[in-house]
Amino acid sequence: MTVLMKGAEVSAAMKESLLAELSALKSEGIEPKLGIVRVGARPDDLSYERGALKRFDGLGIPTQVFELPEDITQAAFETEFRKINDDPSVHGILVFQPLPSHLDNDWVRTHINPLKDVDGMSPLSSAKVFAGDKDGFAPCTPSAVMEMLAHYGVELKGKNVTIVGRSMVVGRPLAMLMLAEHATVTICHTRTVDMPSICKRADILVAAAGKAKMIGADYVTEHSIVADVGINVDPEGKLCGDVDFDAVSPIVRMISPVPGGVGAVTTSVLAKNVLKAARLLAAQKKS
Amino acid sequence: MTVLMKGAEVSAAMKESLLAELSALKSEGIEPKLGIVRVGARPDDLSYERGALKRFDGLGIPTQVFELPEDITQAAFETEFRKINDDPSVHGILVFQPLPSHLDNDWVRTHINPLKDVDGMSPLSSAKVFAGDKDGFAPCTPSAVMEMLAHYGVELKGKNVTIVGRSMVVGRPLAMLMLAEHATVTICHTRTVDMPSICKRADILVAAAGKAKMIGADYVTEHSIVADVGINVDPEGKLCGDVDFDAVSPIVRMISPVPGGVGAVTTSVLAKNVLKAARLLAAQKKS
Repeated sequence: MTVLMKGAEVSAAMKESLLAELSALKSEGIEPKLGIVRVGARPDDLSYERGALKRFDGLGIPTQVFELPEDITQAAFETEFRKINDDPSVHGILVFQPLPSHLDNDWVRTHINPLKDVDGMSPLSSAKVFAGDKDGFAPCTPSAVMEMLAHYGVELKGKNVTIVGRSMVVGRPLAMLMLAEHATVTICHTRTVDMPSICKRADILVAAAGKAKMIGADYVTEHSIVADVGINVDPEGKLCGDVDFDAVSPIVRMISPVPGGVGAVTTSVLAKNVLKAARLLAAQKKS
Repeated sequence: MTVLMKGAEVSAAMKESLLAELSALKSEGIEPKLGIVRVGARPDDLSYERGALKRFDGLGIPTQVFELPEDITQAAFETEFRKINDDPSVHGILVFQPLPSHLDNDWVRTHINPLKDVDGMSPLSSAKVFAGDKDGFAPCTPSAVMEMLAHYGVELKGKNVTIVGRSMVVGRPLAMLMLAEHATVTICHTRTVDMPSICKRADILVAAAGKAKMIGADYVTEHSIVADVGINVDPEGKLCGDVDFDAVSPIVRMISPVPGGVGAVTTSVLAKNVLKAARLLAAQKKS
């Protein structure tokens, strides 16, 4: 019987430990808050924002949305962002990217306080992830994969993990998080030759290519554990992952669906990171 | 017939293009200089320094050694380092690490001007390498591996590259440099299970484990191309690599020896990085 790795179950389990940490922080007089910086009102951003607000609401963690006009100048954006960055009541900052094309994405990535960088966008955060330093913030999606595998008791040490995709938001940071857990890691991508054979050898296969249903039955065996990070729309207009779920799920040992898989864990990771940020900021204040 | 990949041949070929770029820089009034910061006089540091000075001398690139007393205080070190960092006549800075234990390695890594960071020690450099941004400086050893393979015409796109070792000075940055060339990359380490089988499947195998002669005949096939990054001393007191050269070299297609292999390319990479730094600094000055 194939085990279905459900994001809602992972988030429900995370909720317990998040509430415990939240109450510990509050007892120290710390009230963690997430600041969301959104320029304009792109539907994708609004959809993720709604999900995040609902999650944080469910946990009792305050949020504040800073909506800035789509035509804001770089100078005005910098002024607004600095205020949020320096506001001691904001512990974590999520900035929707990419910013409109007239704004400087690099500026915000290099100016965000690394201790508030709960979505792992700054070079300092990525350098820490690269080095395997657990103080750093990884982007939420690769962290969600790690939470999911941990929740379902998937051992990583000494296992062969193959990641399809080499982006800076999933593939590369995930490879580093897997290395930190002592997995043997292979990174595949569009130029990989004979990808099905390589993927078949993996104990754990993570699909993060951004290509609808590209992982078929020939990529897996009955031993495979498959995490699907893709969020695509199929020709019938339905949400689907990078894995051809109908073809793959009957074969493998464990698999995460889309929707309802990894994507349903990312806002829980965001909450976890806000609590971690609140801790780091408090420790910095003391030292 | 096994092809021997010799560091001296790679460096000789690099010399031509380095001299051309040096003369181009000079014609623009730029005189690139390497600053070497050494605290104390560790034999390893002195040995590498001698090699670097000889290489730079052969290329006609000036160097300046800043030798600081082993018992220098952090405050005094910071003052000295800031002077070098801000000195417009110094285009690249090599700091021997680790610093003595009473000094703060992190301070120097986070304060070095990223444009002068020719040995790729700063978090900003490693973030760029992680992201595949070729503006960044990778550490010299992984870059030396890339130069060697390029010199011997080894194609990387779509090839399976296996790296044994996950350090921040070789394994991890090398994995990212290989990804940038579109190789499919596997990273092995001490926790990897059945490493010989995994290594045998590689088109290109890079040994960077720091363990004398650990890569034996069972790790390779007649198709393997092997780059040996290890520098160890065997029980007879002789220099040796991570590869058991006598056992492996008769089998494989290409191999780099130790000594005389990758290690003989690192100071050429250092020189290349100093010229690149001089270009980046000049471009920054103009803008």
